Amino acid sequence: MPLRLSTLFLRTLRDDPADAEVASHKLLVRAGYIRRSGPGAYTWLPLGLRVKNRVEQIVREEMDAIGGQEVQFPALLPKEPYEATGRWEEYGDALFRVQDRKGADFLLAPTHEEMFTLLVKDHYSSYKDLPAYLYQIQTKFRDEARPRAGLLRVREFIMKDSYSFTVDDAGLDQAYADHRGAYLRIFARLGLEVVPVRAQAGAMGGSRSEEFLHPSPIGEDTFVESDAGFRANVEAVTTVAPEPLDEAAIAALPAAEVKDTPDSTTIAALVDVSNQMVPRQDRDWSAADTLKCVVLTAVLDGAERRQFIVAVPGDRDVDLKRLEAGIGAVLEVAGEPGVEQATDQDLAGHPSLVKGYIGPNNESGLPFLVDPRIATGTAWITGANAPQQHVFGLVAGRDFSWDGVVEATVVQEGDPAPDGSGPLHTRRGIEMGHIFQLGRKYAEALDLKVLDENGKQVVVTMGSYGIGVTRAVAALAESHHDEKGLAWPRAVAPADVHVVATGKGEEIFAAAEQLVAEVEALGLTVLFDDRKKVSAGVKFSDVELIGIPTSVVVGRGLAEGVVEVKDRETGQATNVEVTAAAETVARIVRAG
Amino acid sequence: MPLRLSTLFLRTLRDDPADAEVASHKLLVRAGYIRRSGPGAYTWLPLGLRVKNRVEQIVREEMDAIGGQEVQFPALLPKEPYEATGRWEEYGDALFRVQDRKGADFLLAPTHEEMFTLLVKDHYSSYKDLPAYLYQIQTKFRDEARPRAGLLRVREFIMKDSYSFTVDDAGLDQAYADHRGAYLRIFARLGLEVVPVRAQAGAMGGSRSEEFLHPSPIGEDTFVESDAGFRANVEAVTTVAPEPLDEAAIAALPAAEVKDTPDSTTIAALVDVSNQMVPRQDRDWSAADTLKCVVLTAVLDGAERRQFIVAVPGDRDVDLKRLEAGIGAVLEVAGEPGVEQATDQDLAGHPSLVKGYIGPNNESGLPFLVDPRIATGTAWITGANAPQQHVFGLVAGRDFSWDGVVEATVVQEGDPAPDGSGPLHTRRGIEMGHIFQLGRKYAEALDLKVLDENGKQVVVTMGSYGIGVTRAVAALAESHHDEKGLAWPRAVAPADVHVVATGKGEEIFAAAEQLVAEVEALGLTVLFDDRKKVSAGVKFSDVELIGIPTSVVVGRGLAEGVVEVKDRETGQATNVEVTAAAETVARIVRAG
Repeated sequence: MPLRLSTLFLRTLRDDPADAEVASHKLLVRAGYIRRSGPGAYTWLPLGLRVKNRVEQIVREEMDAIGGQEVQFPALLPKEPYEATGRWEEYGDALFRVQDRKGADFLLAPTHEEMFTLLVKDHYSSYKDLPAYLYQIQTKFRDEARPRAGLLRVREFIMKDSYSFTVDDAGLDQAYADHRGAYLRIFARLGLEVVPVRAQAGAMGGSRSEEFLHPSPIGEDTFVESDAGFRANVEAVTTVAPEPLDEAAIAALPAAEVKDTPDSTTIAALVDVSNQMVPRQDRDWSAADTLKCVVLTAVLDGAERRQFIVAVPGDRDVDLKRLEAGIGAVLEVAGEPGVEQATDQDLAGHPSLVKGYIGPNNESGLPFLVDPRIATGTAWITGANAPQQHVFGLVAGRDFSWDGVVEATVVQEGDPAPDGSGPLHTRRGIEMGHIFQLGRKYAEALDLKVLDENGKQVVVTMGSYGIGVTRAVAALAESHHDEKGLAWPRAVAPADVHVVATGKGEEIFAAAEQLVAEVEALGLTVLFDDRKKVSAGVKFSDVELIGIPTSVVVGRGLAEGVVEVKDRETGQATNVEVTAAAETVARIVRAG
Repeated sequence: MPLRLSTLFLRTLRDDPADAEVASHKLLVRAGYIRRSGPGAYTWLPLGLRVKNRVEQIVREEMDAIGGQEVQFPALLPKEPYEATGRWEEYGDALFRVQDRKGADFLLAPTHEEMFTLLVKDHYSSYKDLPAYLYQIQTKFRDEARPRAGLLRVREFIMKDSYSFTVDDAGLDQAYADHRGAYLRIFARLGLEVVPVRAQAGAMGGSRSEEFLHPSPIGEDTFVESDAGFRANVEAVTTVAPEPLDEAAIAALPAAEVKDTPDSTTIAALVDVSNQMVPRQDRDWSAADTLKCVVLTAVLDGAERRQFIVAVPGDRDVDLKRLEAGIGAVLEVAGEPGVEQATDQDLAGHPSLVKGYIGPNNESGLPFLVDPRIATGTAWITGANAPQQHVFGLVAGRDFSWDGVVEATVVQEGDPAPDGSGPLHTRRGIEMGHIFQLGRKYAEALDLKVLDENGKQVVVTMGSYGIGVTRAVAALAESHHDEKGLAWPRAVAPADVHVVATGKGEEIFAAAEQLVAEVEALGLTVLFDDRKKVSAGVKFSDVELIGIPTSVVVGRGLAEGVVEVKDRETGQATNVEVTAAAETVARIVRAG
């Protein structure tokens, strides 16, 4: 049976929804695929549900092809397993927590590592049972601080999450490679360009990790690539730092000197003042010669606020997201701390800090961290921890030390790739998938062991792998549209063909009905615009808005025995004998 | 590709799980269809997920056949629409309530009337758009006080819920009939016996309502049927009450008399004492002559406790569930009040009540309700509201009045059907589906109106219709098993055929592989026991436990060129030439 527009639950909209900023949000709502049902929440309408189901089916087929086995967990889970791994706390505000009528704690799962670990523990006990790849396609919940961009960032979304269980690291490497291959095939079949980039593992723990980013100017992630093929999320880029100097070279450097530098609380002012009052012979001072010491606050578990100082070259901005990726390890705190500028209130607890003149060796007692560029032997102009004074030629490792090194600055176009493959270009992308080598963190926390070949208990090695189904629908809309509407890839379109009957004659509608039946008999799915009192103009606009790849117009041409077959993407239209139309369309659809 | 037992994520269990009481729970866990993941929560394992998906697909096809259109709402919903209809409060403890990081209130939806109403309001404005039947197959949440019986009563479950929108009552009648027909076809296709019975509408509001009960001794619902075809849930049975007497007849009755009745605080003691101290000439007093006045507590919104007295014939037990169905209307409170025996604390607030001797005309000020059998002109022995005293010949409507009439007593085997169709038989059943004529309650609360044919705004008329998918899987297991395991109907089995290779010869496994390929080539799905180091006995036990309708054993017979084809339900086994086996099996499966 075709989807008939005369009865389909669909009202296309001429105007963009007021709250929509990105194309996928505007068009998916206007074309009647989704409708807002609450803050950061959308209802799938009949057309949208079809696209979503097709995406899920492609994911399912490729997961099955690598030996994945599908299961389905509840979304509402008991607290205890997440307490055992520490994630009940670590997730902070992003976790929806629920109490039942007896006051027992539950959560709405954002991801299911713990539950899969326990399920395997409940089933398997020998290396002979492994490897096992298990997955589900299921609703996830995340209390987003700022839901945005329609389906791109919502509080309730559909993910495929899979988990590999292997007896050792070699097994994990294979599982990781299997999933990586499946992911590339999935995105290729969906018609969605993705770039796999190195990533930070974040709260998941584990070692090797890659994100699959869909390049897009509206993406929330920034990634870099070198011409020679290095690719990474900026959070995972390591800075190419200067070689540290040896002791002799350091000893040869001039001694540090404190100078009066009135009214120089900004880097620009400091450079000016330095060039006026302490001019160099060889060249002018620049921002790159200065060391900026910034007080920041790490927010732990969404609650505790811990201040620290980070020193970066004055010509570089601090990158809070990159700091967040590394700060947990440096401060030796669990979870994913947030990092913010210190507030006045945060600073009030540290009166010894001289605002605008903070440098190393201050008396605040706060952890003092440095960017990797602050290598041993580098010399800096920096705050003297006294009003209106800076110190010149302060040498790292000679005149000051630090509590830790952390990636703290933005990665810029032209920075060198860490693998020496040349200068980096920066691009933005939407995270479509993420694969992690978890290692043994979860299996250890939940005591998942099997007997190995020698009869010894070994902790199982795990990987976890996610694809955002909801987000894939949005990214497909984002990358497959024009100013008139959507233009779906064939693999995910809500129907294969959009048949339109236009005109007043009964014979037109009869011929269109006949054509629809013929096309369906060839195994294609049809969206049929059989509306009687709707103008041709409205119908044509809807064809372009809804975005089925191929349309057939049964209208005026019928008097000459022809119908118009049109390609949504190219706009190319051809007249075809009505008697040959179904076969023609089937050929086009099958050609893909 | 077949499901191979050598790699399938499955461990069948020989022992029943400790917490399981009913057959479906025991067998679904033992046969590896589900696994407990928390209190009242189960994970679908690969075999279970297949059964669930097949049930969903049958539901989907029959909903589509009546013009239903599938959509999908989020599970996590904002509070406001549920406040507008009053259900945010009315649901009481059964609703999971969630706050987001900003403190905004959300709920995990137990049912979606409000959201569908708003969705249609957002799309439609004219009678020409109607009727519309919309549905979803989606996860629901309910904070059950006592999750039990495996999948039969869980906190997170899958339901098909649909909603009809029509311009008037005639449209609703049609929508109701369409859904009723679809439901009967769904259950017939599933192979699940159901009895449609009249039901109370409960918190849903609305008028006509039927439940589809699967007759089962472990059912939580009791229903009645007469031989002539009256069927109702006991909660919806109306008592056939005696005709009230007219004034003259009442005046002719003897006057009431208070008598000493020492130590007669139970009905049995009261009957004994009455027969000793106030003997009748014509017959002995019996419990049916006494009027029992019971103090009960209605629990409103899960919080406020309100006491009332209900008077019932002494030979009948009070039925709290039937009382719950009617008490809201009589006490004029919204929602679904619970009804409990009054506690000592409840009674402490009413010191004028004389325990064991409570009768009408007491001074407690509590609402005094009567069962319909307490018709005007009926005469009773009942408490005199004084210690050790009862009153004889107290006539309803002459000597006492009441604040309301409520169905308060159990329906018993042999009670007359309310439609005069003879005596009732009682049976127990599991609620599989429920259809409601909602009327205009939700559309009014949320202001869903359309223009009618005369250009006038009319409130839309709604129906709502649910089927428990999760519960259907459980009921199918409950009704299709024997002492050895499950025995699925073909329509929902996780595979069409279970092929077993037993023996040591490589040729046996090769022949089995060949057979599996042939069976799959004929379009059937196969569960293939290809395990090498597992005994024939274990494999045969698993065949019976897992319950695929048809199995084929490739084993010793192969030397003579035959395999054994066996029917799980009848146990009938036939030897078939291995060359003809695939065709034979396909014929059996297609015969259904």
